[in-house]
Amino acid sequence: MKLWDKGISIDKKIEQFTVGNDREIDIHIAKYDVIASKAHAKMLQKIGIITIEELVELLGGLKILETQIENGTFVIEPQFEDVHSKIEFELTKSLGEVGKKIHTARSRNDQVLVALHLYYKENLGIVKEKTKTFFTTLLELAETHKDKVLPGYTHLQVAMPSSFGLWFSAYAELMIDDVYLLNAAIQTVDQNPLGSAAGYGSSFPIDRELTTKEMNFTTLKYNVVAAQMSRGKSERTIAASLGSLCNTMSRFAMDACLYMSQNFGFISFPDELTTGSSIMPHKKNPDVFELIRGKCNKIQALQSEMILITNNLPSGYHRDFQLLKENIIAAFEEVKDILDIFNYSIQQIIVKDIDVHSDLYKYLFTVDNINTLVVEGQSFREAYQKIGGQVQDGTYVADTSKKHTHAGSIHNLCLDGIRAKFPE
Amino acid sequence: MKLWDKGISIDKKIEQFTVGNDREIDIHIAKYDVIASKAHAKMLQKIGIITIEELVELLGGLKILETQIENGTFVIEPQFEDVHSKIEFELTKSLGEVGKKIHTARSRNDQVLVALHLYYKENLGIVKEKTKTFFTTLLELAETHKDKVLPGYTHLQVAMPSSFGLWFSAYAELMIDDVYLLNAAIQTVDQNPLGSAAGYGSSFPIDRELTTKEMNFTTLKYNVVAAQMSRGKSERTIAASLGSLCNTMSRFAMDACLYMSQNFGFISFPDELTTGSSIMPHKKNPDVFELIRGKCNKIQALQSEMILITNNLPSGYHRDFQLLKENIIAAFEEVKDILDIFNYSIQQIIVKDIDVHSDLYKYLFTVDNINTLVVEGQSFREAYQKIGGQVQDGTYVADTSKKHTHAGSIHNLCLDGIRAKFPE
Amino acid sequence: MKLWDKGISIDKKIEQFTVGNDREIDIHIAKYDVIASKAHAKMLQKIGIITIEELVELLGGLKILETQIENGTFVIEPQFEDVHSKIEFELTKSLGEVGKKIHTARSRNDQVLVALHLYYKENLGIVKEKTKTFFTTLLELAETHKDKVLPGYTHLQVAMPSSFGLWFSAYAELMIDDVYLLNAAIQTVDQNPLGSAAGYGSSFPIDRELTTKEMNFTTLKYNVVAAQMSRGKSERTIAASLGSLCNTMSRFAMDACLYMSQNFGFISFPDELTTGSSIMPHKKNPDVFELIRGKCNKIQALQSEMILITNNLPSGYHRDFQLLKENIIAAFEEVKDILDIFNYSIQQIIVKDIDVHSDLYKYLFTVDNINTLVVEGQSFREAYQKIGGQVQDGTYVADTSKKHTHAGSIHNLCLDGIRAKFPE
Amino acid sequence: MKLWDKGISIDKKIEQFTVGNDREIDIHIAKYDVIASKAHAKMLQKIGIITIEELVELLGGLKILETQIENGTFVIEPQFEDVHSKIEFELTKSLGEVGKKIHTARSRNDQVLVALHLYYKENLGIVKEKTKTFFTTLLELAETHKDKVLPGYTHLQVAMPSSFGLWFSAYAELMIDDVYLLNAAIQTVDQNPLGSAAGYGSSFPIDRELTTKEMNFTTLKYNVVAAQMSRGKSERTIAASLGSLCNTMSRFAMDACLYMSQNFGFISFPDELTTGSSIMPHKKNPDVFELIRGKCNKIQALQSEMILITNNLPSGYHRDFQLLKENIIAAFEEVKDILDIFNYSIQQIIVKDIDVHSDLYKYLFTVDNINTLVVEGQSFREAYQKIGGQVQDGTYVADTSKKHTHAGSIHNLCLDGIRAKFPE
Repeated sequence: MKLWDKGISIDKKIEQFTVGNDREIDIHIAKYDVIASKAHAKMLQKIGIITIEELVELLGGLKILETQIENGTFVIEPQFEDVHSKIEFELTKSLGEVGKKIHTARSRNDQVLVALHLYYKENLGIVKEKTKTFFTTLLELAETHKDKVLPGYTHLQVAMPSSFGLWFSAYAELMIDDVYLLNAAIQTVDQNPLGSAAGYGSSFPIDRELTTKEMNFTTLKYNVVAAQMSRGKSERTIAASLGSLCNTMSRFAMDACLYMSQNFGFISFPDELTTGSSIMPHKKNPDVFELIRGKCNKIQALQSEMILITNNLPSGYHRDFQLLKENIIAAFEEVKDILDIFNYSIQQIIVKDIDVHSDLYKYLFTVDNINTLVVEGQSFREAYQKIGGQVQDGTYVADTSKKHTHAGSIHNLCLDGIRAKFPE
Repeated sequence: MKLWDKGISIDKKIEQFTVGNDREIDIHIAKYDVIASKAHAKMLQKIGIITIEELVELLGGLKILETQIENGTFVIEPQFEDVHSKIEFELTKSLGEVGKKIHTARSRNDQVLVALHLYYKENLGIVKEKTKTFFTTLLELAETHKDKVLPGYTHLQVAMPSSFGLWFSAYAELMIDDVYLLNAAIQTVDQNPLGSAAGYGSSFPIDRELTTKEMNFTTLKYNVVAAQMSRGKSERTIAASLGSLCNTMSRFAMDACLYMSQNFGFISFPDELTTGSSIMPHKKNPDVFELIRGKCNKIQALQSEMILITNNLPSGYHRDFQLLKENIIAAFEEVKDILDIFNYSIQQIIVKDIDVHSDLYKYLFTVDNINTLVVEGQSFREAYQKIGGQVQDGTYVADTSKKHTHAGSIHNLCLDGIRAKFPE
Repeated sequence: MKLWDKGISIDKKIEQFTVGNDREIDIHIAKYDVIASKAHAKMLQKIGIITIEELVELLGGLKILETQIENGTFVIEPQFEDVHSKIEFELTKSLGEVGKKIHTARSRNDQVLVALHLYYKENLGIVKEKTKTFFTTLLELAETHKDKVLPGYTHLQVAMPSSFGLWFSAYAELMIDDVYLLNAAIQTVDQNPLGSAAGYGSSFPIDRELTTKEMNFTTLKYNVVAAQMSRGKSERTIAASLGSLCNTMSRFAMDACLYMSQNFGFISFPDELTTGSSIMPHKKNPDVFELIRGKCNKIQALQSEMILITNNLPSGYHRDFQLLKENIIAAFEEVKDILDIFNYSIQQIIVKDIDVHSDLYKYLFTVDNINTLVVEGQSFREAYQKIGGQVQDGTYVADTSKKHTHAGSIHNLCLDGIRAKFPE
Repeated sequence: MKLWDKGISIDKKIEQFTVGNDREIDIHIAKYDVIASKAHAKMLQKIGIITIEELVELLGGLKILETQIENGTFVIEPQFEDVHSKIEFELTKSLGEVGKKIHTARSRNDQVLVALHLYYKENLGIVKEKTKTFFTTLLELAETHKDKVLPGYTHLQVAMPSSFGLWFSAYAELMIDDVYLLNAAIQTVDQNPLGSAAGYGSSFPIDRELTTKEMNFTTLKYNVVAAQMSRGKSERTIAASLGSLCNTMSRFAMDACLYMSQNFGFISFPDELTTGSSIMPHKKNPDVFELIRGKCNKIQALQSEMILITNNLPSGYHRDFQLLKENIIAAFEEVKDILDIFNYSIQQIIVKDIDVHSDLYKYLFTVDNINTLVVEGQSFREAYQKIGGQVQDGTYVADTSKKHTHAGSIHNLCLDGIRAKFPE
């Protein structure tokens, strides 16, 4: 058969094209295929398709694979197109015909779908946990630095007084909104899809409630067509939730990079967290925060990919779905790293003392001055004009003594209130 | 000053540029600005900024505007840049100085933010309600047509038997996942942002718990910086949730268009719901479903816009935020229409009788035939080869008698189970 | 028939749903429908479908409409679903049967398609022209301010000397890349699609070369199926090209906003171009530049919409295509405004004198110092360590005398070279 | 130092985080770094920074690396963070101090930027070449199958006669539009950026015209700030052009999948190009075309990623730019594969004979029948009603004898015209 450039035969090339990177990706879902296979085997015994002895053999074979996966010794060799073929091969090699029986009443699509649901569910939980850790760090930093003044900007112009307490806890509170989305994503994948077979169910009398319980799913995706159509839909919801969290982190990282600029000079980080330049001996660059920002922005783009792969496809399985898992799994691994790195790095922050009496920042307090006049009985318009006049003619003197006392303001951060809002 | 082409002065052009379409859009949020103004006025009286008499006057003035808005007689004339200026003007015109006092301890940003939160919250609730109506319709259609067989496809190839019951209820169950996202969006906006002022709070001792209660928010967005940063973030979450719902509807509409094609011929609609062609006398086109699909796809693109407007912006208010509301409000109005139209139209569906014994569909039942042999004691491999051989040599006869009994399969749709899953 | 909420009948609601905003949008393409109709009429006469007398009548009728459109008196009343029905009605009203004959051998799809091509082509040309105007302004500003030093940043950290000359001309040169894309978009739409009828051509012996010439298209889209499939594809290419230009402008506007921040203080604008705050008397906000940035970011999102509407649709016309034109036309109108406003505003820039000898900026010159030592014979490593040591122990003295002479550097901007690169 | 979960030290984790997948990706750009290094060395000799003997040594060292790269024996070991460090190390190891001198007057940013430009330019050329091959194949298929009738659909409804000739050549002609964009992308990267150093040029008197010529760039990106800002911008343009091409291929693949469905049955492929099912013995699935569609859709999403990474970042280098190359290089490699596979596979197509006289398709010819009556002198309205009446009462008989003769129609495909349009 006709050879291609680089001497690869067309068959080989088409095979590579259809297999893609499945082997690399599937290492992440091997554990979950075993969990689902155990549940399926138990169910098959319960409905009489396999004997109790066969079940014991199967569970034994799966246990061995489970241990290999845990130990990192499980390898998907090039002759297997994915993790499911590999596991099937191993079971059949060690158990003979029994190893094949486990595939009764389920299809490859079924296996991929349920393994992905289990992977997603566990990893969404881990991301939520790490988000909570980061959230707690931010609230602690807010408490520590609550008396440190920070200029507040609107339109990137010096506006009104803010504080490091406000800044840290703002990002903490915003993460609560991200967790609402993570929880929605968890609900979406916490529905057992196993039993949809090729997407239209099975004529075997399978017991889907039993597998639901065995795998700790809260409910099942009843409709077998809906189960298959969740491919793409789950990934899209996950991408939206990870993207939302990444949006919060990206903007926080942007602030960090800006505040480290000499022109702001509000914060710094120890040398271990900054990098120098090969040509400029004075540089101390915030690469870690730039990469957090960049990686988070990349993950925000992921939902476009998930939508484009499945959009406008009629119902029923399509091979295109195979392409969904690669970047969504990569995103999970990336987000977990980002959360670890960000949580570690932000604790090393060096908060500078900012001289709010300097010329640059003195107008931060004009609104406070005006409000004082209003409280003393002047109309807002009069007060505004009076202070405005002082700003114009250079006689304005900032009154930095004013306390902001309402809920959520500089001197009343309500950190406990924020902490209590973190969703279950 | 230099004139531009078309004789518009530069000042005029810049003014138009900065005002944008605010007047048209703001009609949708007028009602909510009044609600928030009432709450703010009550709070101002409570903390002693205005008297009880002044409060009564303000509430009276606001009541008049509220009635105009309800009656559709409220108009934002060209001299006002937005709804907030208009309301301020009306109150001052009728009440004098008191009309101005309502702006004590709040800023324009504050007003826009809280009015949008109220609009979003109410409209997310309406969308959820309409989704439930559509969901219920689909379950009823599933019940009605549960015995109508429909060929099931994988890879767009004839695969296994499905049914109209499965098809309708699949989309119903998928909508539950969309509602998880809608609920996340509701949680996101059900937090009172009022009191953040320009984004850094106020030196007035405002009572944010009181306004939270008055406006029926479940909680408050404590941190004033977080409150302002929710702009863009809320819209993004809303866009993700509306987009998810639209994804479900778009794919359902795609199926409808495909199934109406003569080559499938599975369904039809009455003439009132189809359109003819100006040049082809035989045409009966599914324009309504194509427009549902197209509009839903458009709305799916919205989150990219929301992300791009705010991404990488440092914290604090930026004027860019003004641009977020136009298309998100348009999307709400569109989604409500789509849900109404889709819910109405789908009820007119004409489900055809499909002859599954025709040559086109007879292989739908090969898996059932194989499974029967397996239950009779043959190994899956033997059974697969036997039926495969019959398919090859043309002796295959479909056994269409098999019942699928497991949860979520053709003959056991679990509609009550699905109904019960619809989230609060 | 069942009434809907708000008392709108279902028929009315479905009609509104299918018509959408076509009337508002179509005002922009009325002119082009007339141009195409004239060409089509001439062709019909040429091939003997209409007589020369009928042609004269038709051209007369079209001339009247053309004048109305130019004068702004052309109105698409609510009884017409789009501009094409309106024009057909007017011609038939004034000319009788002849008015109908113009529709021989073309379909509504045909008309929409060719009118949009003409609109796109003309407006891409206008955008390119305005881009050239802006480009020229930037080069002039670069020339004017070529000796004004500006700190150059990498990682948002003070890095090496730059200049306003470099800054202005950087954005000019980047726009050349945008024009490459605009030119690609022009090539894409500069192909006559008229004659594809409903997408499969006509059995009339129409002369497409003649209409191509009449409408000044460079070539024709030969294949009638390709002509219809260009819907969505053209819009996507246009969105990519406008988005690219907007990306350049958005980033330039970002720089402007940042450089106006007190912490940079590199530039300013006259009061007419900045806005104050209703509560902060000291504010001078760059709203115009923030809105340029925001609007440009919005337009960058447009291509996602264009892709999602048509992606995965099989070949042939779908009603979804109707939805493509609204936002792409809005984007054209917006981009033209942005270019005008930006070009006007940037000319008002006030470039500040920046003291590069201040502590903040003195390290800008470390690389120059090192290079001097290298030229004097030291190895780069030695030189780097020497200057690095001076930075460490505080003995570093910046040598600001160094000239950068190579092409494209501070003291050799190559403005003529850049000017010459602007594509035809 | 504190250990992380999985026993990875924080330093190690941060290092991995910052290095990312650079080693894997950089294999693709190694060749181009060598090309650029040779040009830079020649230039350094020309301006007197290195001697002719040093140049000879450097070129010798680079030649060795070049050979390794060609032979596939070049490896970037884990101790190097990227290809540039690896090459620097090898040169210094073999040549000593001279190996370091090559880095005079350039920075790492410079190296990455120019190597990417060279990679992009060469690969855009390859993609264009492969597109031309595919285009030619499609025109040949159009010629071969020009007499095979294919039903034409609008709204997915049977509409008017089309042909396989029209279908194949439609996609060929659409690819011309994609090449316009590829050419724009080529123009964008065919500008030498070398010499921008860290983004603000160099105080060395480097000769950028010389390196431009040495590397065969058509022109240079003069402005050094623009050169750095092209990062993200080039990638975005490339993503738009590859995405456009992928859009065409994705839609073609969609047609192929649909036409292979039993309900259409218009085409087929040999068994080697289809796959069976593990549970359904009758299946013959078009996996290759589904994966082409899916992979093409994925690549269409890429531009969102490119935009999000750089959008709203102020001018100057940011570390985020490092993240641009991974997926854009992966996309190039993928697109080249897709073009090869698609071009190979489509040639195996089996075009079926479609019975247009069957009930399903007979109305395809109503417009032709009407037009015949019009040519015979009836008004279009009369003719439309007459044929419409026949359709209604079942007396309609299709006249399939009509020839479509105009340019681009079924019987006049203008393949030579299309071929001639393919851009240089």
